[in-house]
Amino acid sequence: MKQYLKIDEWNIIEEGFQADNLRMSESIFSLGNGHFGERGNFEEPYSSDSYRASFVAGITFLNKTRVGWWKNGYPLFSTSVPLAADWRSVKLRLIDEELDLATWGVNRFSRKLDMQAGLTHREMEITSPRGHRLYVEVTHIDHIGRSDLCIIEYSVKSMNYTGKVSLLPLINLDVRCKEDTSGEKVWNILRAGIDDDCAYLWTQTRREDAQVCYATTYTVKKNGAACATHPIRVEQEKQVGFSIGVDVKPGDSVRLVKYAAISSSLYCDRNKLMEHALAEVRQAKSIGMEHLKNEQQQAWSRIWDDMDVQIDGDPAAQQGIRYNIFQLRQAYLGDSPRLNIGPKGFTGEKYGGNTYWNSELCCVPFFLTATQQPVAENLLMYRYNQLPKAIENAAKLGICGGAALYPQVTYNGEECHNEWEITFEEIHRNNIIVFALLQHATLTGSDAYIARYGLEIMIAVSRYWSRRVSFSQPKQQYVILGVTGPDEYENNVDNNWYTNYSCVKCLRITLHYIELVAAQYPDDYARIRRTVNLNLREEAERWNDIINRMYLPVDSRLGIFVQNDGFMDKELQSVDAIPPDERPINQHWSWDRILRSCYIKQSDVLLGLYLFYTDFDLDTVRRNFEFYEPMTVHESSLSPHIHAILAARLGKVEKAYRLFLHATRLDLDDYNNETQDGLHITSMPGSWLAIVRGFAGMQVRNDTLQFNPVIPAQWRSYAFKVNFRKRTIRLCVTPEETRATLLKGEPVDILINGQVVSL
Amino acid sequence: MKQYLKIDEWNIIEEGFQADNLRMSESIFSLGNGHFGERGNFEEPYSSDSYRASFVAGITFLNKTRVGWWKNGYPLFSTSVPLAADWRSVKLRLIDEELDLATWGVNRFSRKLDMQAGLTHREMEITSPRGHRLYVEVTHIDHIGRSDLCIIEYSVKSMNYTGKVSLLPLINLDVRCKEDTSGEKVWNILRAGIDDDCAYLWTQTRREDAQVCYATTYTVKKNGAACATHPIRVEQEKQVGFSIGVDVKPGDSVRLVKYAAISSSLYCDRNKLMEHALAEVRQAKSIGMEHLKNEQQQAWSRIWDDMDVQIDGDPAAQQGIRYNIFQLRQAYLGDSPRLNIGPKGFTGEKYGGNTYWNSELCCVPFFLTATQQPVAENLLMYRYNQLPKAIENAAKLGICGGAALYPQVTYNGEECHNEWEITFEEIHRNNIIVFALLQHATLTGSDAYIARYGLEIMIAVSRYWSRRVSFSQPKQQYVILGVTGPDEYENNVDNNWYTNYSCVKCLRITLHYIELVAAQYPDDYARIRRTVNLNLREEAERWNDIINRMYLPVDSRLGIFVQNDGFMDKELQSVDAIPPDERPINQHWSWDRILRSCYIKQSDVLLGLYLFYTDFDLDTVRRNFEFYEPMTVHESSLSPHIHAILAARLGKVEKAYRLFLHATRLDLDDYNNETQDGLHITSMPGSWLAIVRGFAGMQVRNDTLQFNPVIPAQWRSYAFKVNFRKRTIRLCVTPEETRATLLKGEPVDILINGQVVSL
Repeated sequence: MKQYLKIDEWNIIEEGFQADNLRMSESIFSLGNGHFGERGNFEEPYSSDSYRASFVAGITFLNKTRVGWWKNGYPLFSTSVPLAADWRSVKLRLIDEELDLATWGVNRFSRKLDMQAGLTHREMEITSPRGHRLYVEVTHIDHIGRSDLCIIEYSVKSMNYTGKVSLLPLINLDVRCKEDTSGEKVWNILRAGIDDDCAYLWTQTRREDAQVCYATTYTVKKNGAACATHPIRVEQEKQVGFSIGVDVKPGDSVRLVKYAAISSSLYCDRNKLMEHALAEVRQAKSIGMEHLKNEQQQAWSRIWDDMDVQIDGDPAAQQGIRYNIFQLRQAYLGDSPRLNIGPKGFTGEKYGGNTYWNSELCCVPFFLTATQQPVAENLLMYRYNQLPKAIENAAKLGICGGAALYPQVTYNGEECHNEWEITFEEIHRNNIIVFALLQHATLTGSDAYIARYGLEIMIAVSRYWSRRVSFSQPKQQYVILGVTGPDEYENNVDNNWYTNYSCVKCLRITLHYIELVAAQYPDDYARIRRTVNLNLREEAERWNDIINRMYLPVDSRLGIFVQNDGFMDKELQSVDAIPPDERPINQHWSWDRILRSCYIKQSDVLLGLYLFYTDFDLDTVRRNFEFYEPMTVHESSLSPHIHAILAARLGKVEKAYRLFLHATRLDLDDYNNETQDGLHITSMPGSWLAIVRGFAGMQVRNDTLQFNPVIPAQWRSYAFKVNFRKRTIRLCVTPEETRATLLKGEPVDILINGQVVSL
Repeated sequence: MKQYLKIDEWNIIEEGFQADNLRMSESIFSLGNGHFGERGNFEEPYSSDSYRASFVAGITFLNKTRVGWWKNGYPLFSTSVPLAADWRSVKLRLIDEELDLATWGVNRFSRKLDMQAGLTHREMEITSPRGHRLYVEVTHIDHIGRSDLCIIEYSVKSMNYTGKVSLLPLINLDVRCKEDTSGEKVWNILRAGIDDDCAYLWTQTRREDAQVCYATTYTVKKNGAACATHPIRVEQEKQVGFSIGVDVKPGDSVRLVKYAAISSSLYCDRNKLMEHALAEVRQAKSIGMEHLKNEQQQAWSRIWDDMDVQIDGDPAAQQGIRYNIFQLRQAYLGDSPRLNIGPKGFTGEKYGGNTYWNSELCCVPFFLTATQQPVAENLLMYRYNQLPKAIENAAKLGICGGAALYPQVTYNGEECHNEWEITFEEIHRNNIIVFALLQHATLTGSDAYIARYGLEIMIAVSRYWSRRVSFSQPKQQYVILGVTGPDEYENNVDNNWYTNYSCVKCLRITLHYIELVAAQYPDDYARIRRTVNLNLREEAERWNDIINRMYLPVDSRLGIFVQNDGFMDKELQSVDAIPPDERPINQHWSWDRILRSCYIKQSDVLLGLYLFYTDFDLDTVRRNFEFYEPMTVHESSLSPHIHAILAARLGKVEKAYRLFLHATRLDLDDYNNETQDGLHITSMPGSWLAIVRGFAGMQVRNDTLQFNPVIPAQWRSYAFKVNFRKRTIRLCVTPEETRATLLKGEPVDILINGQVVSL
């Protein structure tokens, strides 16, 4: 863990220049607007250890798959979102010196991420190697309302320097990251140059022809007034822009505003791309920095109005939850079913910008509840559109007949991962899509979406299970052999309880919706029957047989579900038995040692108890929680919030609070020693779910919304809004009372602590 | 399977040019002399699909490890034997045409590998695109007695051509193979040029400075007589040699003899390498082709005298067994403990020329018995020398305290493999070294070698097991979790019977030898105690506890050992249920499907029954054989001979014969559709073992050699020699009788079919 950032309810603050933590800070201060984003790098070059990266949503590159030993079924290519051109670059030169914090003296330094204003701000007093002292301020905005626009205000004040200050706003494609091992050329340049007051760079990914055109222009003022400059054009092969020199003496200040447009072929016609980017920056320049900054603040204010959680009495938790909401919204706007959310958003290359089951496990429930139903539906539609590819994918692995296996990792619906134990075996991922659809129905109160889009997915997934299970003669039951469950610290196990149980759930849900859609949405049903060529009688018979005879491993002595066959043969011990300097174990232990240990990467049996809460009584949850939680190392970001929710349900409030903090401040406090690689974007909504489903105990049972709130001892109150069946309800919880307010929609009865409350 | 090669007892013959089978033929016609070797490529270039490769023993390159997803414990670099310069190259030019069988007409074509003469011979009548007809003969020898020398006789007769014929003997380092994906530069060139009548190329592997110097010279005759030539020097960056032009008219013939030396730093001082190589070819040239050819034939005659197996009545089997012995001896001379045997010898890059457990499972028993005790000892010494690295390797995986885990794949003792399920989990490999040491004692009748070298290995391996097992509370027994057994079509299983059983054997053997060495070799014992820091009482107590309480999975209803936990839950069916066009399954099925199927890649439980034959009665062997053999696909070359031996022991002679043919003609008939990648060198002795230990039923029980011969219906007789405790015994088996003859050594009593026979 690292705790060098200041606690503040609305800001993330770094005080003093911390070169050792630079990569982590670069992750933390990342910005984005859903269409593009970049790590919190300095605008100027930094010659020491740093991880400089920018990304454009939906722009992908096909990487050749590299593995040590090939297995049949591995994908030949895998899609990833490549490093884009660096549009934030602003260089600062004093004749023969160029600002580089790795070599210049830093007298004062602070920066903050302002989550209300939606910007980062940096102030520093620095001394050049020749002793020239400057005061520099930088404000950086990725504009939420103007999705192609980034604005950087770069101010320099001379303290003891007389001479020329040059500022260079640049677009630079000469990017190569330490993480980039492919060695392949990613980008072709279609055109690069200067058009009057604008520089532009028009690029294309090789193999795929995804296009991005960047443009930039600027204004310069000296001591607050416009000044004549004679910009020098920068027109290199991979870098374009301007060099603007201004003569200063001590006390003078120069202020550059750089406007950059990042226009991509995902949203704009290829042949209008350059025109569009140039128009964007020229318009922004005519509007001006101050107005754009106001727009940004207003846009964020609307978001906070919808989604903010107020925690009174615990600034660290308050900061954490807001940071998570802020970063998630920066990474994903939800304006297109063509996009999903990469686990690191725009903050790192790890996971390639691809889609994981994180989206359905964590993001869909969040967006469904936290006012953003259309966003959730775009995430679901992404999967619906990829159903044909999921069917191809199952066939590739030998499971045919309209069965679907959704990829573990994908951009365009094709599998991008190449570890057999994940790619071919972590098949429980198939089910979370079905459960996300079910949550849609539960939370919206309508089955129309499932009738229109969901049932086809359900049928294809059920068909997969129907062919993937096998029948054990000794057990006279169905078994699922050779899987990796949610706990990826077990590979190729038999009868993972979560997988087997969720397979049964999935078959049940599918059978239920076949009946429901047939009865209530006959047109949809007729269409689906034609599309999927459903042989209902025979398939239902097989599915019911699997439902009735599925093997579910239990330990009846302990009264628990057994994570997988053989788990009880392990040497079972608590996480406390691991020496602290060997954690996280995935950074210290060899893989075989992890596998044969009892340690659980992330909730597995407990995940099932969380998802299917209406199926289990609290005693069952308690026994399993008390057995599994002590062995769980939470080295997946998807884990702590699940345990936090269960702990809160069990009344273990202090435990729940610690797990919640883990989920909420995972990146800010660097729990797993990996924030430097980027943020855990797709698990960030987990901390919101921990509050709403955990502390507030939100559940839907028998079509009734209910809350069973608890409150951590550290908090005076907490409050949030949820959406439920066309209503918006605000809940405020204090140790003394829970107050629910209907903000929008028809009156409704809900249950609070088992009492009916009419809103 | 492919059966296009002619059956002949002493030759491998291809008649007619088969471009479609070229890669397979290139493997089949490979030559080598233990110090270097090359695939059976044409001497002249071939512009269509071909796999051209040459290798020099002991010359290695450190490849950067590439994997999809890194795991702690993977090696950063892995050693491999890289493609060497092409020293076989001879080009044939007619002014503006150059011979290339991919574009020239081939009127007649035949080639053979003559296993008595130790050479390949090719004859062909060809027509150039301009209609010039030539008759070409090529003889190729890798000289067994002169370990640096390769000789090629290249004769061209004009049938209708008048003009200049140019022959170009070359050394060419411009090699890049389709299999080479690293893209890294392997070779530096130290010096390349011409020295009077010789060309030379002096090279060095980057990162490791292993050096090879090649030299070549030649003689040319026209119509059998010396002729004046004006050789043109070829001195390109990566290619040196000569171009020798001779004017011919129809009926004239030109005969080039190319002498090539391949001298390596493994056997020669670096600073004398060039001198040595030049002297070698000059001396060879002065001796001349005919004499060298005679030497070669005599050298092979001595080898055959020792190692030949005569099978009367079955030319296909006869050809197969000789081919296997021939190729194994080409790949490995056994003259240095620094060398081991790569699974493909010098016939392909697959497996990187590294050492696998094949050496101890298959080669050591062969060499121990088939007259070559010093060779077997060099293979064992190779492991002894690498013991410190094996101890480092175990420590890397978290198992410390003088425990050794020998690598799965290695050249210099460091692990070269990077699949976790193999690298970290296929740990049974550790034991085969102990069992090979035990076989050494059994077959030589002396424990001195174990006292001197073996016991340290045994102790280190036993310490590994002692720390690798874990204790199951529910079972109250020791278990071994998370392993891959010999059957690599199961990964990360618990309690692989073979692994658990062989762990117990290993501990028992070690305890036995600690006692024996202490009693009989006190000096060795004192030295070993100092070296390994043995805490005998405590360690022995732990080992005995493991021996007494090891869990060994059985199915008592069926009376069989269970391959691993969960195996009986699979859908068990015979190999016959697999559609023929889906075999081998590893080329058609996705990995998960293979894993969850019941199909067994190679003998696993049955391997234990083969190795520990004194532990099990025939009924136990029979029940297990009848259960496991039908599910075994034998997609490892190490498998069929084990099953053949067991089948023979069980009196299933026809079954044994079919398995023997599979083992024996694996490459000649391309059973697994992969001969094109190279030959299965290290499993070739399996066919010899199948005859000696299988059909002839050789066993040693209570220090007595015994045979229980059977004979396949197809055979009139078979005969071979074995070495046993300083004696050489010839056995000849016919359907009527078995005749044993003592060829060398003291009189001895042996058992034949349970009857004492005094020799």
